Amino acid sequence: MVAVDESEESMYALSWSITNLISDTNNNSKLMLLYVKPPSAVYSLDSAGYIFSNEAIEALEEYSAKLAKSVMKRAEAICRNFDATNINIEKVVGTGEAKNVICNAAKKLEADTLVMGSHGYGFFKRALLGSVSDYCVKNAKCPVVIVKQP
Amino acid sequence: MVAVDESEESMYALSWSITNLISDTNNNSKLMLLYVKPPSAVYSLDSAGYIFSNEAIEALEEYSAKLAKSVMKRAEAICRNFDATNINIEKVVGTGEAKNVICNAAKKLEADTLVMGSHGYGFFKRALLGSVSDYCVKNAKCPVVIVKQP
Repeated sequence: MVAVDESEESMYALSWSITNLISDTNNNSKLMLLYVKPPSAVYSLDSAGYIFSNEAIEALEEYSAKLAKSVMKRAEAICRNFDATNINIEKVVGTGEAKNVICNAAKKLEADTLVMGSHGYGFFKRALLGSVSDYCVKNAKCPVVIVKQP
Repeated sequence: MVAVDESEESMYALSWSITNLISDTNNNSKLMLLYVKPPSAVYSLDSAGYIFSNEAIEALEEYSAKLAKSVMKRAEAICRNFDATNINIEKVVGTGEAKNVICNAAKKLEADTLVMGSHGYGFFKRALLGSVSDYCVKNAKCPVVIVKQP
């Protein structure tokens, strides 16, 4: 399972996974791409504490759905670049707090290995909420690979 | 590069590496086993602050050298179990603060990937000094795999 987001680093983590974890000889390799959309609640207050209008919330949710699609498209393009015909790709989109969604998905979908970039999900959010990758290293039950972009 | 220590978990991390990171088709796979001996300075004071005699220090250093040998032997036995004739095994023994030695070794020896258990190097030391694996995830330049024993 590779957690992908808008970052270059997560795309690099995906490439790393295909190169290093998916063997040429195993024809049943399954690659799960996981993208996490932020919870809707995040949008219901803006930074000054004003409640957004329903229209604004809808617009933001539409934006978030589009973002999910575009990240998944990029990820699939990377998989195609590797000419990886032996990989079964499965796309999973979750909603909620990234760190919780990722750990839960890895557990529920029985991921053998969880791969992610080290700096995803934005600098400010990380400073406020702590690093998503730190949390996953501590809480995921499976081996976790943290990939940094060189 | 796999950081091995006295723990079962690090041996499991080694098995994981052979199974998942070393491909059958690549005949030039190089596996570096890294063991870190504690710095001598750790032994020069006991918990009550008394300075150990030279004899005691020598005895402890001998013990530490024996421990390094026995860990390496176990690690090599695991590699043999996998019938991994295509792997070149290289043993590296470092001395010092584990987290620094591991990150420096990974950099100097140009490890492609660093693999380690999540709970090595003892509960009390970890509580005092922080987790070695946390530090390596943050500071190593290469991808880091943190393996938990199931």
